[in-house]
Amino acid sequence: MKLSGVIGYLVTPFVDGFINEPVLRLMVNRLIASGVHGLSPLGSTGESAYLNDEEWEVVARVTVEECRGHVPVVIGASALTTRKAVNLAQKAKALGADAVMVAPLSYWKLREQEVFGHYAAISEAVDLPIMVYNNPATCGIDLSPELLVKLIRQLEHPFAIKESSGDIQRMHRIQELSGGEIPFFNGCNPFALEALCAGASGWCTAAPNLIARDNLMLWDCVQQGDLKAARDVFYRQLPLLRFILKGGLPATVKSGLSLQGIDAGVPRLPLLPLDPDGTQALAALLASVSPFEEA
Amino acid sequence: MKLSGVIGYLVTPFVDGFINEPVLRLMVNRLIASGVHGLSPLGSTGESAYLNDEEWEVVARVTVEECRGHVPVVIGASALTTRKAVNLAQKAKALGADAVMVAPLSYWKLREQEVFGHYAAISEAVDLPIMVYNNPATCGIDLSPELLVKLIRQLEHPFAIKESSGDIQRMHRIQELSGGEIPFFNGCNPFALEALCAGASGWCTAAPNLIARDNLMLWDCVQQGDLKAARDVFYRQLPLLRFILKGGLPATVKSGLSLQGIDAGVPRLPLLPLDPDGTQALAALLASVSPFEEA
Amino acid sequence: MKLSGVIGYLVTPFVDGFINEPVLRLMVNRLIASGVHGLSPLGSTGESAYLNDEEWEVVARVTVEECRGHVPVVIGASALTTRKAVNLAQKAKALGADAVMVAPLSYWKLREQEVFGHYAAISEAVDLPIMVYNNPATCGIDLSPELLVKLIRQLEHPFAIKESSGDIQRMHRIQELSGGEIPFFNGCNPFALEALCAGASGWCTAAPNLIARDNLMLWDCVQQGDLKAARDVFYRQLPLLRFILKGGLPATVKSGLSLQGIDAGVPRLPLLPLDPDGTQALAALLASVSPFEEA
Amino acid sequence: MKLSGVIGYLVTPFVDGFINEPVLRLMVNRLIASGVHGLSPLGSTGESAYLNDEEWEVVARVTVEECRGHVPVVIGASALTTRKAVNLAQKAKALGADAVMVAPLSYWKLREQEVFGHYAAISEAVDLPIMVYNNPATCGIDLSPELLVKLIRQLEHPFAIKESSGDIQRMHRIQELSGGEIPFFNGCNPFALEALCAGASGWCTAAPNLIARDNLMLWDCVQQGDLKAARDVFYRQLPLLRFILKGGLPATVKSGLSLQGIDAGVPRLPLLPLDPDGTQALAALLASVSPFEEA
Repeated sequence: MKLSGVIGYLVTPFVDGFINEPVLRLMVNRLIASGVHGLSPLGSTGESAYLNDEEWEVVARVTVEECRGHVPVVIGASALTTRKAVNLAQKAKALGADAVMVAPLSYWKLREQEVFGHYAAISEAVDLPIMVYNNPATCGIDLSPELLVKLIRQLEHPFAIKESSGDIQRMHRIQELSGGEIPFFNGCNPFALEALCAGASGWCTAAPNLIARDNLMLWDCVQQGDLKAARDVFYRQLPLLRFILKGGLPATVKSGLSLQGIDAGVPRLPLLPLDPDGTQALAALLASVSPFEEA
Repeated sequence: MKLSGVIGYLVTPFVDGFINEPVLRLMVNRLIASGVHGLSPLGSTGESAYLNDEEWEVVARVTVEECRGHVPVVIGASALTTRKAVNLAQKAKALGADAVMVAPLSYWKLREQEVFGHYAAISEAVDLPIMVYNNPATCGIDLSPELLVKLIRQLEHPFAIKESSGDIQRMHRIQELSGGEIPFFNGCNPFALEALCAGASGWCTAAPNLIARDNLMLWDCVQQGDLKAARDVFYRQLPLLRFILKGGLPATVKSGLSLQGIDAGVPRLPLLPLDPDGTQALAALLASVSPFEEA
Repeated sequence: MKLSGVIGYLVTPFVDGFINEPVLRLMVNRLIASGVHGLSPLGSTGESAYLNDEEWEVVARVTVEECRGHVPVVIGASALTTRKAVNLAQKAKALGADAVMVAPLSYWKLREQEVFGHYAAISEAVDLPIMVYNNPATCGIDLSPELLVKLIRQLEHPFAIKESSGDIQRMHRIQELSGGEIPFFNGCNPFALEALCAGASGWCTAAPNLIARDNLMLWDCVQQGDLKAARDVFYRQLPLLRFILKGGLPATVKSGLSLQGIDAGVPRLPLLPLDPDGTQALAALLASVSPFEEA
Repeated sequence: MKLSGVIGYLVTPFVDGFINEPVLRLMVNRLIASGVHGLSPLGSTGESAYLNDEEWEVVARVTVEECRGHVPVVIGASALTTRKAVNLAQKAKALGADAVMVAPLSYWKLREQEVFGHYAAISEAVDLPIMVYNNPATCGIDLSPELLVKLIRQLEHPFAIKESSGDIQRMHRIQELSGGEIPFFNGCNPFALEALCAGASGWCTAAPNLIARDNLMLWDCVQQGDLKAARDVFYRQLPLLRFILKGGLPATVKSGLSLQGIDAGVPRLPLLPLDPDGTQALAALLASVSPFEEA
């Protein structure tokens, strides 16, 4: 599995409480046209934790259909029980995903052995590359670099790490432990500049829904070693990156899309949409970066 | 809703991956016979987060049936979406529960307004007392004493707080904010002595499955102001309280039940059962406290 | 060394930047008259970290002189270097202290071996009981219950622990590790009720400077097993206990003393005195508890 | 005050418990010859918190004498009381320092107003540029980016920030709040690559005592936008940077100097020197980077 660059994370659009399939198709095509290097539905941004099985399947299917032949698709397949996670990964495989992204959701904190068993079960059941996703803030469990590297090394399908802990030392440690062999992706927006400088293979982010151009420019500047330009474009988009993270990505990205003319609905309750003050602040931030535009 | 004393939390027994109804009935009756003052199925201990809707309903129904006429039943009705939480509370009502216990599960961290809306929706939809449950370790969100008191004061059905944050100052604060009017229950086992001394109305705990006698003795000693005896019985059971919490209540309580001759199965994957070393340690701890015995 | 009950911590009164010896004598006698069971100068409350050697000596000498024949005196003898700490303990001994209290100040975080060496050096150099003081918030280092118990067990002079970490589980752990043999004192005001219920030998506190009567009443109620009364007097004084801790004990206690007619001056810069709003709030809190009064 | 690049932090060499002046002169000249862009004695690495006034003065004087005409000298002038800090800054000025570095030491946590007053007093008393130093791990207080920027903007002499909190977002925030106008230096070794990529004016570090060549190479690579080479030299030195930080800079750097043939003695008690195992590990790490060598 070769994957690098800016991976765009999709929100799940709703209308009347149901998946809005036409808007989903539109958003996927818009992101592809923007130039992102990959797409990922059904992650944190996609409110996957709040969807039922049927809804999950609709989003997965539609995304794969639209991406085929354009960019790789990494489908989120996280669940509290191992049985359900295996089931989602099987569905992702059947639908034609290029990879799945799996986070170890937890109610009771999982011990290392439990996390390992969870990934092992998925890896054994489904022949599909797995991106291992560490996001303690949402998942309630923190995978150490040592464990992440062990999952990649000892299991067949895990191939890359998405690190969203917001601790750059984790990336250093992964780099060291793997001798630079294991690709890691940044999943914490406000660390994008540093993660890419530290050698990240890419940036997994919901921001391209709104500002793909500046996201991609940052990636390009770092690839070219133009640190001055990288800093300029990073600091330009940083307030917006911070804002959308702090307000909850589903709510803020959906509001931003609405400001850009796309009606993706509101997040599912108990999540609330961005309030009017927040929306105004977001509009101002959007005006301060490069407009969304097809590449 | 009058509730006080030791409220026993049930594990959910499995056999071949399904709910083991006969063992569930046995466990309920055994706890009632032990003298606990109330029962609560489908909490954290009950692996409710890992059950599907049908399983949840079986456990709820069976527990209510067995408790009727003996002790009040508080059913766990927590879910990630508001719609689902309302639905569970409605079922609990229909089945004859005395109250529901609701924790604000979260994937995206909920803001205060979102938490309030979640409880308001349940309170409006279902005419049943609600115990508000704060457990940041498992739920990924921490409800301040101010918010907890506000939920009780401004909504119709919330009537009591279960505090499991492990911070005694929260109980002080609830006491102060409510002028001692709002009942709070301790949900963090190793704080039982202090919480009861600080004025808790009771203790919500899975420990009675294994050591109801010592749990009840602690409650009685504190009620009688016999601090010396309370300390003795508390320090006697503390290592066991700490052990079952640290190892994950479903795994440790099920192992303990097995040691006491009751086969409640193992927790659901990815949760693993207690390993042999842990089981041996647990057996030693059980030997150091009062044996489980009907009152 | 027998020590138990409420140990009053003295502020260091200044006038024109110098130690105010007459006021110090007055404060000591006032505390003795209030009925406290021991006195401690030159602790955190006494701004010992901000005094030079000569000032330290004046305060130590005066306190010992006034207490002789009345209550035991535990002098704070903490310093960043081992040499200086030994030197202070030697002076305390020479001046007639009953014990010293030693916290492991740290700039570079001390490892366990370094902490042990520090206490060992003092214990070997000076024949005086040592109270080991854990206060991570001010000292920048956190001594585990295991280390605290080891210091008491393996060294000659350490005899008791003052725990100010604000974690009741530490006290449980000390109780367990020492089989209830090692006396521990509560040093975190808002935990006073719970610490005493959990078996603390006493309460080290600056509060008696302002509200000795309520502090002593709490102690007495717990001794008598009257939990209802203990809770009442504890919750009555809790807002004040919290206030003086949060605002910094030297500043708040000096303001409170001023409200009670005693001019102990202001804390040493960069510490600032309580501002007018804070002073007004403190006055209101003082009016809500039992007035300071000789026993 | 123009300052940028790699600023070397000196240890304080002892012999028989006294300052070893000849070794200090040697170390200063060796660092100047290595090519560092500035020198700083009496910081955390220099054990300034453990020195008496006379010792502080010897180190300050000797360093200034040797650096004159070669590189700027930034002298650490931190103290618990404002009076003492002013006094140290005055001495630094009299001795000919180019700037002072001031951290807000704290026993009682300082509030923002107290920190501001502390820096204001020094700025008013002494006509010398001040580097404001934030290091919560050693100082026990954490200065927000907002406060740091305010100190620079509203006071006359503060001109730059040394950030050692280990949180790259602080540097982003300083950059944003100051519109990129306020120079900030990285003070947390394992963040050197990212801090420089994020726009830091330099790197304040004790590492040049041992590996000046690799430190300077990192600086040069980032300046030239050669990220590939920067990553290579950074990841090469990272294990050593982490090791010397984790073991306490005074102890580890002195051991490393000893391995390089310079006897700077041991840290002052209670600090202990690196043990034999640690020394062996350090030797191995030193063998894996570029040897210390004059430029």
